[in-house]
Amino acid sequence: MAQSDKQTKFILDENEIPTHWYNIVPDLPAPPAPVLHPGTGQPIGPADLAPLFPMALIMQEVSSEKTIEIPDEVRDIYRLWRPSPIFRARRLEKALDTPAHIYYKYEGGSPAGSHKPNTAVAQAYYNKADGTKRLTTETGAGQWGSALSFACALFGLECTVYMVKASYYQKPYRKSMIEAYGATIYASPSTQTQSGRKVLAESPDTPGSLGIAISEAVEDAATHDDAHYSLGSVLNHVMLHQTVIGQEALKQMEKAGEYPDVVIACVGGGSNFAGLTFPFVGEKLRQGKKTRIVAAEPTACPTLTKGVYAYDLGDTVGLTPLVKMYTLGHTFIPPAIHAGGLRYHGDSPLVCQLLDHGLIEAVAHPQLRVFEAAVQFARTEGILPAPEAAHAIRSAIDEALAAKAAGEKKVILFNLSGHGHFDMGAYDAYFAGKLEDFDYPDEAIAEALTHLPKVG
Amino acid sequence: MAQSDKQTKFILDENEIPTHWYNIVPDLPAPPAPVLHPGTGQPIGPADLAPLFPMALIMQEVSSEKTIEIPDEVRDIYRLWRPSPIFRARRLEKALDTPAHIYYKYEGGSPAGSHKPNTAVAQAYYNKADGTKRLTTETGAGQWGSALSFACALFGLECTVYMVKASYYQKPYRKSMIEAYGATIYASPSTQTQSGRKVLAESPDTPGSLGIAISEAVEDAATHDDAHYSLGSVLNHVMLHQTVIGQEALKQMEKAGEYPDVVIACVGGGSNFAGLTFPFVGEKLRQGKKTRIVAAEPTACPTLTKGVYAYDLGDTVGLTPLVKMYTLGHTFIPPAIHAGGLRYHGDSPLVCQLLDHGLIEAVAHPQLRVFEAAVQFARTEGILPAPEAAHAIRSAIDEALAAKAAGEKKVILFNLSGHGHFDMGAYDAYFAGKLEDFDYPDEAIAEALTHLPKVG
Repeated sequence: MAQSDKQTKFILDENEIPTHWYNIVPDLPAPPAPVLHPGTGQPIGPADLAPLFPMALIMQEVSSEKTIEIPDEVRDIYRLWRPSPIFRARRLEKALDTPAHIYYKYEGGSPAGSHKPNTAVAQAYYNKADGTKRLTTETGAGQWGSALSFACALFGLECTVYMVKASYYQKPYRKSMIEAYGATIYASPSTQTQSGRKVLAESPDTPGSLGIAISEAVEDAATHDDAHYSLGSVLNHVMLHQTVIGQEALKQMEKAGEYPDVVIACVGGGSNFAGLTFPFVGEKLRQGKKTRIVAAEPTACPTLTKGVYAYDLGDTVGLTPLVKMYTLGHTFIPPAIHAGGLRYHGDSPLVCQLLDHGLIEAVAHPQLRVFEAAVQFARTEGILPAPEAAHAIRSAIDEALAAKAAGEKKVILFNLSGHGHFDMGAYDAYFAGKLEDFDYPDEAIAEALTHLPKVG
Repeated sequence: MAQSDKQTKFILDENEIPTHWYNIVPDLPAPPAPVLHPGTGQPIGPADLAPLFPMALIMQEVSSEKTIEIPDEVRDIYRLWRPSPIFRARRLEKALDTPAHIYYKYEGGSPAGSHKPNTAVAQAYYNKADGTKRLTTETGAGQWGSALSFACALFGLECTVYMVKASYYQKPYRKSMIEAYGATIYASPSTQTQSGRKVLAESPDTPGSLGIAISEAVEDAATHDDAHYSLGSVLNHVMLHQTVIGQEALKQMEKAGEYPDVVIACVGGGSNFAGLTFPFVGEKLRQGKKTRIVAAEPTACPTLTKGVYAYDLGDTVGLTPLVKMYTLGHTFIPPAIHAGGLRYHGDSPLVCQLLDHGLIEAVAHPQLRVFEAAVQFARTEGILPAPEAAHAIRSAIDEALAAKAAGEKKVILFNLSGHGHFDMGAYDAYFAGKLEDFDYPDEAIAEALTHLPKVG
């Protein structure tokens, strides 16, 4: 019997923190669709992005190198929580009475409680090196806002966060954490920006959306010389930075002596999904592995399962370039579900391209079944998950139950992207029977899709 | 230059999780004072404790063995967060411009966010093995209540938690977490017990105290056959279980190539203090090391710095045995400061004996300087500390500044016993200027001390 037959935790040495980020672009079957200027509809170049990002990040955004070296300063801070552990969920397996082996990579050990610092630290580093004084950003559930304010504190950068209003009130303590790290925070839409004021004039009671908050943060950076903008998901360089997760996971699964049949992560903008799965997609593309890669999203914001693959704006107001992605339309405002990090009308263009190529699949879960999975996981495995991550747990449990029904041994790996210590209001609402399922009506989505920009 | 000159993180392999708990009792210069029956004033024996605890834990409580083996089932669950890392606080050192080397052991990576699961898991294990169906307990800040409910969920035990009313309302999300793990929770004093009803009749508006909540939990267990009581601090077997912290720390400091001149932890009931420091006190006693051991407590509840060393009750109502400890009197009700875990009128008898022997020293910090240290730590080291743990940070910073003033290199090690993700309300109050310092008046303490039970 191999030692791994009894082990439940698979860790790596500190010197096994990856030295390079993995870039999936050169492994893709086709080059990514170009990013277009929102005014001219023509492809944009690095110079067009210079008002928002330091050149080092722009070069990563358009890179076709296979790997990009991680600066020592970034790896030094990664040591606070990396390498992150992989656990075999033996108690959950037993509760489900499944022949499946369930593994999870746990990213909740970072100071901000999620995978987000993997890119926040890198972005703060390159901005500091570029002379940036202040970073602006948006945040949904607050995971990204706390991660960036944490990173800015460590590099001595100022930080301004526009937090989606629905989450700002649902998660007051995320706001407090962001302030504790020294950042300034506004509920979005705010009166701080022209974009915010425009939305407020039209819909004073809007719960806000990531699309609106992005408009505000982009406008703030674009109109202030010493400020740059920072995005916690969607963009290629963000996906790139997160690949430390999957690179570690590949090594850890080797230590476990198994290779996953299914790899699962939740998708909001795509960053934790890309982080875990891109290195496994790379193995599919290069080694012909048959691994299924599953993206789990909410039925309340079913971008990958009900959106269209088209050029759309990344924000609501129209300050960002046009990118080709699965989208529900940039005017789509999802209901205020408790997985605030998954309320985005689009998704990472790279993730969307993989779905278009048939290299990954997507599934949508209603809110109540997600919380049911979260509670079952907490009471068996002991870690209380963030509602976003619980979408991945739901999929993992569904896969494990399917394996049981089929009498198949199956190896499942999912990303537990964050803990739920800031989400207790959502758990309260769940236990009080106050949570509802949102199955966003097809007609509303169809209407939002009529607002897609015309291209070409 | 040794590698440790550059390192910031010192980790151990999974197989270096201690295999035994360290019992300080046989190393003490004198045997512990006997525990007395509250009615007769005579020493009690194991049988007297049987209504409350399984015999395995009672035997640990009175053990004079040097070490006690950790069951495999307990070590299996420890793997979820153990071995815990030690970090060198290089960014804090730089901010303080101190020649001191500051190290911290981080226990906040456990599923409950603190060191408390180290004993919760052990206690749940022994109770499960003994056939207990339900555990009752009290909790102050909620760290212990979440730890025990987590452990009970994993072993399939029911759990009833009496949470000090002040914290119940200050930290609603700790309550939610306890419920998410499936436990039942009451604000204490409650109407569930005779003890609670008695206190409520006398002081309907009391913020509660650990002493009262203990009375309730003990009464609940003593009056129900299938229930046992579980305490998260104070008792010898709890100190014992926590020694995994210090045993790991000894190995990690060896890897760092330094031995601490000062070892610091906060003290409420003494469990995280004992956990980190007892193995270092053992080195003092057995090897003649000169290490200073510092207990940090709040000025609002200055048990070790202003209490008397005398026999007193562990609870407010008088259901527990009499133990010899530093105490502010069992009728003492500390103000509702935000470090709820440090609001206890007494302290672990073992910790108190060490203070009486002059083997450790104690210092009290006012609330505002504690939060100042917490914020400085969060913005340099990145981890947002629990207010309890921030008392240790305050002491560590003070020691580092003293080293700077004296131009001395000094090696400081402290325990960062938990993260502050459930304490954001306290941080909010601090930033809003709403926190006050409480210097508990000497007259109030003198009055409380007149209620000490007469012994012998």
